[in-house]
Amino acid sequence: MKEFNTQPPSGTRDFLPEDVRSRERLFSAIKQVFESFGFLPIDTPAFERIETLMGKYGEEGDKLVFKILKRGKQAATGEANLALRYDLTVPLARFFAQYQNQLPRPFRRYQIGPVWRADRPGKGRFREFYQCDVDIVGSPSLLADAEVILALTKSFSCLNLSGYIVRLNSRKILTGLLEAYGVPEGLRQDTLTILDKLNKVGVVGVVQELKDRGLPEAITSQISDDLLKKGVELRNRIKASRTGQKGLEEVDEVMLLVAPLLTDGEIEFSPFLARGLDYYTGPIFEIYLKGMTGAVASGGRYDDLIGMFVGKQIPACGGSLGIDRILSTLDVSRGEGDTLKPQVFVTVWDRDSRAEALRIATELRSEKIVVEISLGEGKIGNQVRFASERGALYCLFYGPDEQVRKKVTLKNLSTGEQISVRREQVAETLKTLAQRR
Amino acid sequence: MKEFNTQPPSGTRDFLPEDVRSRERLFSAIKQVFESFGFLPIDTPAFERIETLMGKYGEEGDKLVFKILKRGKQAATGEANLALRYDLTVPLARFFAQYQNQLPRPFRRYQIGPVWRADRPGKGRFREFYQCDVDIVGSPSLLADAEVILALTKSFSCLNLSGYIVRLNSRKILTGLLEAYGVPEGLRQDTLTILDKLNKVGVVGVVQELKDRGLPEAITSQISDDLLKKGVELRNRIKASRTGQKGLEEVDEVMLLVAPLLTDGEIEFSPFLARGLDYYTGPIFEIYLKGMTGAVASGGRYDDLIGMFVGKQIPACGGSLGIDRILSTLDVSRGEGDTLKPQVFVTVWDRDSRAEALRIATELRSEKIVVEISLGEGKIGNQVRFASERGALYCLFYGPDEQVRKKVTLKNLSTGEQISVRREQVAETLKTLAQRR
Repeated sequence: MKEFNTQPPSGTRDFLPEDVRSRERLFSAIKQVFESFGFLPIDTPAFERIETLMGKYGEEGDKLVFKILKRGKQAATGEANLALRYDLTVPLARFFAQYQNQLPRPFRRYQIGPVWRADRPGKGRFREFYQCDVDIVGSPSLLADAEVILALTKSFSCLNLSGYIVRLNSRKILTGLLEAYGVPEGLRQDTLTILDKLNKVGVVGVVQELKDRGLPEAITSQISDDLLKKGVELRNRIKASRTGQKGLEEVDEVMLLVAPLLTDGEIEFSPFLARGLDYYTGPIFEIYLKGMTGAVASGGRYDDLIGMFVGKQIPACGGSLGIDRILSTLDVSRGEGDTLKPQVFVTVWDRDSRAEALRIATELRSEKIVVEISLGEGKIGNQVRFASERGALYCLFYGPDEQVRKKVTLKNLSTGEQISVRREQVAETLKTLAQRR
Repeated sequence: MKEFNTQPPSGTRDFLPEDVRSRERLFSAIKQVFESFGFLPIDTPAFERIETLMGKYGEEGDKLVFKILKRGKQAATGEANLALRYDLTVPLARFFAQYQNQLPRPFRRYQIGPVWRADRPGKGRFREFYQCDVDIVGSPSLLADAEVILALTKSFSCLNLSGYIVRLNSRKILTGLLEAYGVPEGLRQDTLTILDKLNKVGVVGVVQELKDRGLPEAITSQISDDLLKKGVELRNRIKASRTGQKGLEEVDEVMLLVAPLLTDGEIEFSPFLARGLDYYTGPIFEIYLKGMTGAVASGGRYDDLIGMFVGKQIPACGGSLGIDRILSTLDVSRGEGDTLKPQVFVTVWDRDSRAEALRIATELRSEKIVVEISLGEGKIGNQVRFASERGALYCLFYGPDEQVRKKVTLKNLSTGEQISVRREQVAETLKTLAQRR
C-alpha cells in the first residue's frame, strides 16, 4: 500500500475533539457579545468570483489570494475564475449590494468563519484562519466606529483577556502627514506600506526602506524624528493640512467616545499606524494584547469599498478579531467538560445479545443520555477496560443472568460499585445518578 | 464607479440572518443526536494536498474536485497542488492516519462542515454544501454499520422528518451479481456507475446505457429482468457466488439490528443500489424522504480507504447527512425567535449626548441585554421609526429633561406606554419587564 503525507497542508491545522470544544466555547462567547450589540449573523460562500476580490487589498494582498482553477475542458488553460475569500469584508460589500433592500440600514452584521491567505506560515500565522468580524454598513457616524471598537474589546473582556491596547489612527492623518512631508504622489502608497511595517522592522528598518524606495534624505530624516518623539510638534504638522486636521478630529472624537468605557484596557493615538489594506478611508485601529507582538484585532472605516459594488457611496466601518492568534499564542487552556465522555458504556455479552444491547442504547439515547455501545463482543474485561479509557461513568451489563431476571447491572467505573436495576428503569436511574453528582 | 456582479458564484449561496439562525438550529439538533451516540467532533482544513484527494472518488468524482492554483512564481505554470475537500471522509482517513495514537479505537467521530463539488447546480444541488458526517474507524463489526444508520435516522426524527426509507445493499452483493451475470472484469466498474443512475434514468435508461457501453444482450436482458422483479430468483443468483453470499449475510445482519429500532421510517433491501464512490467495500445505504427524488443521507463501509494512508488495513464505516437538500426541498420553516431583535433601542438626543447614550448602552449590554444604539443623532421621530422597523421592544430616551432628573424614559414600542425609570435602575427594570412577557 502506498503511503501518503498525512499532515494537514502547510499553514493549515486539524482540530482534535478537545480543540473543537474549546474553539466552540470561544466562538459562542464572542457571538453572545456581538449579538448584545445588535449585530446580525450572515454567511457567504468560501469562494468568490476572482474579480470580486482582486484589486481590493493592495498589491501585497492580491498576491496572497488562493485562486481556483477553471473546471472541465477549461482546466487545461491554467486560468482561475474563482478565489478563496481573503477576508470577510469584501464578501460583505458584495452581499450588501445584493440584498440591500432586504436589510435594515444601518446594517450591523457579524460573521465568524475561515479566510485563506497564502502567507508564509509562522507562529500564530496560518493560511487558513478564522475571523470574527463586526461591521456597520450605512452610517457615517463615528459612533459606529466606537461601537465596533467596543464590541471587539468587550469580546476580549469576556474571554478574560485584559490589558489590551487599542492603537487608533486615521488614514486621513497619514495622508495629511505625507502631504506635509512633501512625499511625491507616486510614492505615497509605498510609503504607507513601509510605515505599516513599523512594528516588525522598527524605526531604523522603516527609514532604511524609505530611503531604498527613493525618498529624499530631507523627508526620511523628518519622518525618523517624528517616529522617535511623537509630540505637539507632530500634532501641528498633522494639523497643517485640511485632511490631516479632519483626521485628528476623527481620532479625538472616537477617543472621547471609547476611552471612558474601556474597563480592561486602554486606547491610544498612534499617528503612524497604517494598516496594510487599501480600502480604508477614515479611522483605523489595531488591538494588541500584552506580551504579544502581532495585533489580535484590527479594523477601520472604508467608505468607498461598498460603493464599488453598489454604484453609489455607502459609508461603512468594521473590525475583525483573530481568534487563532489568541488561541495559539496564549494557549488558552482547555476548559472543564470540554472532552465529551459517554455517560454509559453498554457492553455486549455475545453475538446474540447485540440486538438487545443496541435496543437498550437506543432507549437511553432517546432520554438524552450519551451512550457508547461496545463494537466488539469479545471478553467483557476488555470491553470494561475500553469503557474506562473512554472516560465513561458507568458500564452497563445485560448478560444471560440479567436477561432472565429482566434486570441490568450498572457498574460505576470510578468506585467499582455495582447496582442491579430493573430493565425498564435504567434511564430513570441514570438520570437520578447524574443529578446526584 | 464600476459595477460588479453581486450574486454569489454559481452553485453557492449567501445566508441572510434568519437563514443563519434556522441552519444553526438544525446543526445544533443534529450535533446533539450525534453526541448522544458518543461521536466526537473533529475539524480539518477546507483544502487538502491534491494527491490526498485524487483517485479516491472514481473517475466521475475526480473531475468534480475544485483545484487550487500554485502561488507566487509557480502560478504561471497553471498547475494546482491543493484542492477543496470533496467530502469529509477522505480528510478523516488522512486525519486518522496522522493522529491514530492519540485517538480511541474504535474512534467515533462526527464532523459538520462545507464540502465543494464542481457539479452542475440544480434544485437542491449546490457546489458548496454542508455535510454532517458520522464515522466509526477501527471496527469490523456490523454493529458499527447499524450505529451509523441509527444515528442518521435519529437525526431525521429529531428534525421532525418522518417516513424515511433506508435502502440497504452491500458492495459484495453487486460484485457477486456482476460475477453471476458474467460481466467481464474490465466493464464491472462502468456497470456499477451505470447502475448507480437507476433512480435518475430508470430501468430502460440503465439497460440502454449498459448496451451502449458494450454489454452483450444476454447479460443486459437478464439485468433488465432482475431490475423489474426482484424476488427469490435474484436472491439465489446472488447466493451463487461466495462474495454475493457474504454480502447477503451482511445485509441480513444489519437489517436484523436496525429494523426493530426505527420508529419513524423503514429499511429495505435494495440489491441494485450502487453508490457512486469508489471506496466502498461492504454494506452501503441511502436514505430517502417521502416526496423527494434524491437521497438525503448515504454511506457505507470502506475497509480499504484508511489503509491507503496508514499503510495497513483499518476497517471503517460511516454516513453523511445532506442538510442543504433537506432545507432547500422541504423549505423547513423559520422558527420562532430566529430573528434577532434588539430588546432596547437607545436613542441619541443630540451630538453632545452621544457619549452618555453609549455609556448607557454599554452598561445594559454588560447585563446581557441586547441593545442597539442610534447611529444618527437626527430627529427623534426618525430614530423611533427605525427602532420599530428593527423590531425593538423598547426605545430609551435620555434627553435634557431626563438628564436633569437623572432618569431615563422607556417607551414600549408595541403599546406606546412610557415609563420613567431612575438612571441606575434601567437594567433591573428591563430585566423585570422581560420576565413578565
